[in-house]
Amino acid sequence: MSTRASKRQKPNDADKPFQLIYWPGVPGRGEHIRLAFEASGTPYTDVSNKTDAGANCVLTQIDSSNTGDDHNPPALAPPMLKHGDDVLISQTPNILLYLGPKLGLVPDVNDDPVGAYHINALVLTALDGLSNEAHDVHHPVAVSLYYEDQKPEALRKAKDYREVRLPKFLGYFERVLAGPASKGGEYLYGGKLTYADLVLFQVVDGLSFAFPKRIGKMKESGKYEKVFGLHERVKGLEKVKAYLESDRRPKYSEGIYRHYPELDEEGE
Amino acid sequence: MSTRASKRQKPNDADKPFQLIYWPGVPGRGEHIRLAFEASGTPYTDVSNKTDAGANCVLTQIDSSNTGDDHNPPALAPPMLKHGDDVLISQTPNILLYLGPKLGLVPDVNDDPVGAYHINALVLTALDGLSNEAHDVHHPVAVSLYYEDQKPEALRKAKDYREVRLPKFLGYFERVLAGPASKGGEYLYGGKLTYADLVLFQVVDGLSFAFPKRIGKMKESGKYEKVFGLHERVKGLEKVKAYLESDRRPKYSEGIYRHYPELDEEGE
Repeated sequence: MSTRASKRQKPNDADKPFQLIYWPGVPGRGEHIRLAFEASGTPYTDVSNKTDAGANCVLTQIDSSNTGDDHNPPALAPPMLKHGDDVLISQTPNILLYLGPKLGLVPDVNDDPVGAYHINALVLTALDGLSNEAHDVHHPVAVSLYYEDQKPEALRKAKDYREVRLPKFLGYFERVLAGPASKGGEYLYGGKLTYADLVLFQVVDGLSFAFPKRIGKMKESGKYEKVFGLHERVKGLEKVKAYLESDRRPKYSEGIYRHYPELDEEGE
Repeated sequence: MSTRASKRQKPNDADKPFQLIYWPGVPGRGEHIRLAFEASGTPYTDVSNKTDAGANCVLTQIDSSNTGDDHNPPALAPPMLKHGDDVLISQTPNILLYLGPKLGLVPDVNDDPVGAYHINALVLTALDGLSNEAHDVHHPVAVSLYYEDQKPEALRKAKDYREVRLPKFLGYFERVLAGPASKGGEYLYGGKLTYADLVLFQVVDGLSFAFPKRIGKMKESGKYEKVFGLHERVKGLEKVKAYLESDRRPKYSEGIYRHYPELDEEGE
């Protein structure tokens, strides 16, 4: 499957099917897993979207009576990855960590034994600041309440997010791309595409949907040229481009990235 | 250093010194790294607390002019781990992932190639729900503002945290401990201490400081016996016990876990 196969990979791993278990119809956190499969040309089944199981594939896993099996603890929330019949793992950055060497989306562990950890750190940082916090902007009090029931708090948090957090996180990734470990600034680490680039692509893409005015201004400022350059570069990769144009790419709607004009600086 | 050494470990790794780079005087996210070293009896230097560098060891790393070096991207925030002269990695769960096999705190990759991923998932879940969210309870709007400037929002969020989120997350870990992959329910995975247990110990410990009344009630309810049992079990491990009684263990104060009585249900 990949010339960058990790030592952790068992010889028969390539034959075991990959199944993504996530909510149907939305990009969400599952989108990071879809992009890893799509960008590497790896066959996978998007179970809820492509089989009769639908959302039940998620619901049975997160049911409060499920205690997992002999080898797999239960998962709290999707996405989950099923690999063959016997491996079921959860948590977005963890699934990507597991897939990275199998899909050729991290440096070869023999050449660079620490590279996978740097990529994991970049992904954790991007997901914390640009995905989880982007969600908390419209749900600052409780995920169990509607946005409309926490709108005053959301308006306050959105202002801080636009003015403090977005510049902090995009500025950080600009610095990573300017640094020597990026080997040229086209990709985040080591001069080649890794799954950290796919994650940064997706969070910038989602933010552009949620905060079009603010992201537009940040783009125009010229301060984050390398970050937006990476977004365009990944978007233009042959396999990514084909995926984005396909019906396999779910549309943004009422998920992590939501466009509420009042949270995108019209109120200022 | 360990009989569970990973394939990723180079033969000379054991000779390279470990340095923890974190803010001085507070437990914070650095505490998870300290506990891994302490519980495994691994020598390390807690740079800001034990050398003249103080907080400067953090400040130079997170300076906006720092773009890292040839092999290490810059870090956004502490904690960071320096291993020897050439490895610098960041993000709490990532540092633990790196240390796990080196400190014997994950199953041997040859016996259980997926175990480290399960442990990583458990840690990500515990840190998301019981550390990050516990922090967001007193800072729901912006980390850049004082608690006093977001108190109405904090009161609302605290209610949801106590009534919805705490039962959800502690209930999840109770379910993990009840599951067959825990091999008996004394530890989260595989019947032996891993760094996931140290993380769960620390978050339950911090929550007990921040929400003594609510956690006390949850303890009395008997619904989370295995979780609180694990907390006591880890607390009583010889090396952990000695550490907790030493002056190396920082005291809780104005960090992630803060005790504001009004957020701990007195207002109900």
